[in-house]
Amino acid sequence: MHSAKNAAAMLTRTASHTARTVLSKFYSSVATPRYVPRRAVMYVPGSDQRKIDKVAAVAADCVVLDCEDGVALNQKEAARNTIRATLEKKRSLFAGKDCSVRVNAVSSDLWKDDLASVLASQHLPTTLHLPKVDSTRDIDMFASEVVRLLEGRHLEEPLRVFLFCESGRSLLRLAELCEHGLGLPPPLLLDGFVFGSDDYCADIGMTRSSLARELLYARQKFVSVVRSFRLQAIDLVYIDYKNLAGLERQSVEGAEFGFTGKQVIHPCQVDIVQRAFSPSPKRVQWARGLLEAYEKHQTQGAGAFTYQGSMIDMPLVLQARNVIATSAAQSSSTHTDGDLRAPSYSSPLA
Amino acid sequence: MHSAKNAAAMLTRTASHTARTVLSKFYSSVATPRYVPRRAVMYVPGSDQRKIDKVAAVAADCVVLDCEDGVALNQKEAARNTIRATLEKKRSLFAGKDCSVRVNAVSSDLWKDDLASVLASQHLPTTLHLPKVDSTRDIDMFASEVVRLLEGRHLEEPLRVFLFCESGRSLLRLAELCEHGLGLPPPLLLDGFVFGSDDYCADIGMTRSSLARELLYARQKFVSVVRSFRLQAIDLVYIDYKNLAGLERQSVEGAEFGFTGKQVIHPCQVDIVQRAFSPSPKRVQWARGLLEAYEKHQTQGAGAFTYQGSMIDMPLVLQARNVIATSAAQSSSTHTDGDLRAPSYSSPLA
Amino acid sequence: MHSAKNAAAMLTRTASHTARTVLSKFYSSVATPRYVPRRAVMYVPGSDQRKIDKVAAVAADCVVLDCEDGVALNQKEAARNTIRATLEKKRSLFAGKDCSVRVNAVSSDLWKDDLASVLASQHLPTTLHLPKVDSTRDIDMFASEVVRLLEGRHLEEPLRVFLFCESGRSLLRLAELCEHGLGLPPPLLLDGFVFGSDDYCADIGMTRSSLARELLYARQKFVSVVRSFRLQAIDLVYIDYKNLAGLERQSVEGAEFGFTGKQVIHPCQVDIVQRAFSPSPKRVQWARGLLEAYEKHQTQGAGAFTYQGSMIDMPLVLQARNVIATSAAQSSSTHTDGDLRAPSYSSPLA
Repeated sequence: MHSAKNAAAMLTRTASHTARTVLSKFYSSVATPRYVPRRAVMYVPGSDQRKIDKVAAVAADCVVLDCEDGVALNQKEAARNTIRATLEKKRSLFAGKDCSVRVNAVSSDLWKDDLASVLASQHLPTTLHLPKVDSTRDIDMFASEVVRLLEGRHLEEPLRVFLFCESGRSLLRLAELCEHGLGLPPPLLLDGFVFGSDDYCADIGMTRSSLARELLYARQKFVSVVRSFRLQAIDLVYIDYKNLAGLERQSVEGAEFGFTGKQVIHPCQVDIVQRAFSPSPKRVQWARGLLEAYEKHQTQGAGAFTYQGSMIDMPLVLQARNVIATSAAQSSSTHTDGDLRAPSYSSPLA
Repeated sequence: MHSAKNAAAMLTRTASHTARTVLSKFYSSVATPRYVPRRAVMYVPGSDQRKIDKVAAVAADCVVLDCEDGVALNQKEAARNTIRATLEKKRSLFAGKDCSVRVNAVSSDLWKDDLASVLASQHLPTTLHLPKVDSTRDIDMFASEVVRLLEGRHLEEPLRVFLFCESGRSLLRLAELCEHGLGLPPPLLLDGFVFGSDDYCADIGMTRSSLARELLYARQKFVSVVRSFRLQAIDLVYIDYKNLAGLERQSVEGAEFGFTGKQVIHPCQVDIVQRAFSPSPKRVQWARGLLEAYEKHQTQGAGAFTYQGSMIDMPLVLQARNVIATSAAQSSSTHTDGDLRAPSYSSPLA
Repeated sequence: MHSAKNAAAMLTRTASHTARTVLSKFYSSVATPRYVPRRAVMYVPGSDQRKIDKVAAVAADCVVLDCEDGVALNQKEAARNTIRATLEKKRSLFAGKDCSVRVNAVSSDLWKDDLASVLASQHLPTTLHLPKVDSTRDIDMFASEVVRLLEGRHLEEPLRVFLFCESGRSLLRLAELCEHGLGLPPPLLLDGFVFGSDDYCADIGMTRSSLARELLYARQKFVSVVRSFRLQAIDLVYIDYKNLAGLERQSVEGAEFGFTGKQVIHPCQVDIVQRAFSPSPKRVQWARGLLEAYEKHQTQGAGAFTYQGSMIDMPLVLQARNVIATSAAQSSSTHTDGDLRAPSYSSPLA
């Protein structure tokens, strides 16, 4: 019941089943789009060939070739060309990784040229990141441009999308944006949202403190809403990249809050972040033990029971199943038997 | 003005007055349904006769005979029978207590059988608890089934209802659920909501920490919304039942946040919780003194004034009245001159 | 690019531009209504002539002559008369200050008489404060009464308005109230919202603690929503006016959260609050240095770069611009080249 294989099977849920049925009409290679874990989401400026060439040595689940904030205005065109050349000739740098591209926001003059360049490549990225999404109109404009540019092409897999929440308005409308994003037309498939804390702070007029207490409401609302829609939720950047202890503290906190991953701006941050967003061996062991005890007590007719000093009933059992499923999904992410959505249980299994 | 008797009279508010007018057409024994305090809300597995028989010795305001998470799947039928027999023959065990029953969620196959069994009893429970309410449809299905089962019966009092918020979706729609719940058809009467933190955590994919900092947004949003509708708000379970210091800290915190009570899973938790959700003698004394000073200053024509080193104006006066009213309601809960709703003042008295 | 003068110019944004275009048809003296900083918002009971006469010596940006909670019921008429006489004959007491009047709530019987008295004065206050706004209807009633009373009068400037959020319902509907308030008819112009924490606590039934942890959700939601609409957001009162260390801690926290100012109930609180809501010289220096480094790197074609040990890209640049703009607006508030709205950047400058 709680082996890695069964856990992966448990990931199958009604919502994703429906999505799969629809999607299998569009993509030949997979009946079931795989679950793509993204614990560390690392940005690399699209204009920086030297940093791009080092990507293969970085163990981040997801690398984002950036056209947006990491690229100076006079380097936008160079970034597009470098990214396209990388996709065409150096796709192998991204083996085992989610190869993503972040285009500029639809409120800029740049995004259409970004998309035109990136989507003209023979080898597409796995995922597109769209920053500064403030309204459903932003999503629609982006989607119709992508669909137009990909017309007539046959894709092996859906093209995943991440949207960015980076303003007060976006946070205010987040549920509406999630719902709208889940209706993206094929071949697009919404995988999650990123919380852009520094743009959010600039928008609200906040001052960042090291413990980010001022962001508690925004981060916890963000994760509550995004995870309600079974989407991945990516936490804020820790910009003080020399402070690894601070990074670890904030990463562990983000995982506790329910985020599924975290943005990273330097390779030295990757290991700490990946570890924080993986269930620890101790927690996996706790979960296995709890599930074994649960089955035993169920057979004996006991509902609630005591395990390691705490009173356990169904909600804790579901949490333990989450731990096992997440752990399994992360270690088997190259297979295709995962789920479209981040693992989460809201109701007992039938 | 601030004696216990006057305080109870002050509980009468427009909203409850309207409800009373409607309700008095349906229930013979009381013109004014009484306020039912529920500081400690203790679950007892419906299948566990031994624990049920000990209920009389427990000082919890509210005891919930559970058909749901505390009962193993193969014991559901046994739990129904035990609960029904308890209601028929051992109702005296619950003297002075809110005798509640928690049925299974409408998303299960179990809830209709639960209701059919419990509502066939000659002596009804005071309150029904409905877990995992994710939509207004859940409320409607539950209500129409209860109304159908009680057709033709004459009730002395309204049948109170508590709904559970235990998922991201439920928290997202909480205001809508409150509003809808306040429109429950007679003889049902919504008394409040329970926050089911462990199911919520499983749904979002959170990891629980001992200080529950990860739940700050969810708990504070929950209490803000629920109390806006003048409903009781019941805080999360503290599952580490051997850690009484931790329980006390969290109980005091919950009372400060505005919760009116807390879920309890072991008799040893009851006293600490009941105390935390009662205004302390010191606070009652603070409130009495403040109200006396207020009346004196009003007569003398002073609006704001200093009391115990703080600047006092109307909002603090209202808080002091809350303290007196809550204290009075808890000590006079067996009388029928209380309010339908939890005490709260949002506007000065006329 | 980052001088005070340029910063003030940078304050011009699309939303305010539109407002300006509309407003310039109504007010003769200014093409651009100025930005009115309100770091400390100090209440003075309208019935207390002695305290009013001391106002000139207090360095608060904004002084509010109060008809509401600071005035005893039997002093309401006296307060109206004193305020009107003050406006007529002692307007010079308020030189360089925002001279405001808080009327009673529309749910009281008092507000119409308050308005009739205050608006009959030849010299109007700069700003009207309306407490306890729970619905859009409250706003409409207030607006139509003001418009009626001012009919036929020619105003030099718009009459600014602050609305108070002081209940759970108000917090629940805050976005709707902001949106509605932005549509106030001329000569009214919404400048912001005040968070009335003590009435909010009375409404929810909370107990205040010294660190106000129980208000984290309410304050952070309030500031997020209000600032999303580019309005000023005024933080709670610190009622323990003898504890200046506690006041400073809470003021700094409020500024970090994104509040633009704070309510004050005693002159001894003013300096600490004004300082906390002004960018410190050190932060202004940080911002100037960052913007210089940014321009240098942009010219050299670098997008992200390191500054003082942190990775900087566009969002941090926007935060630095906020600091410069706020500092400039506060020091040049008597000029008319500021903005209608509190400074905030959500998108890069063209």
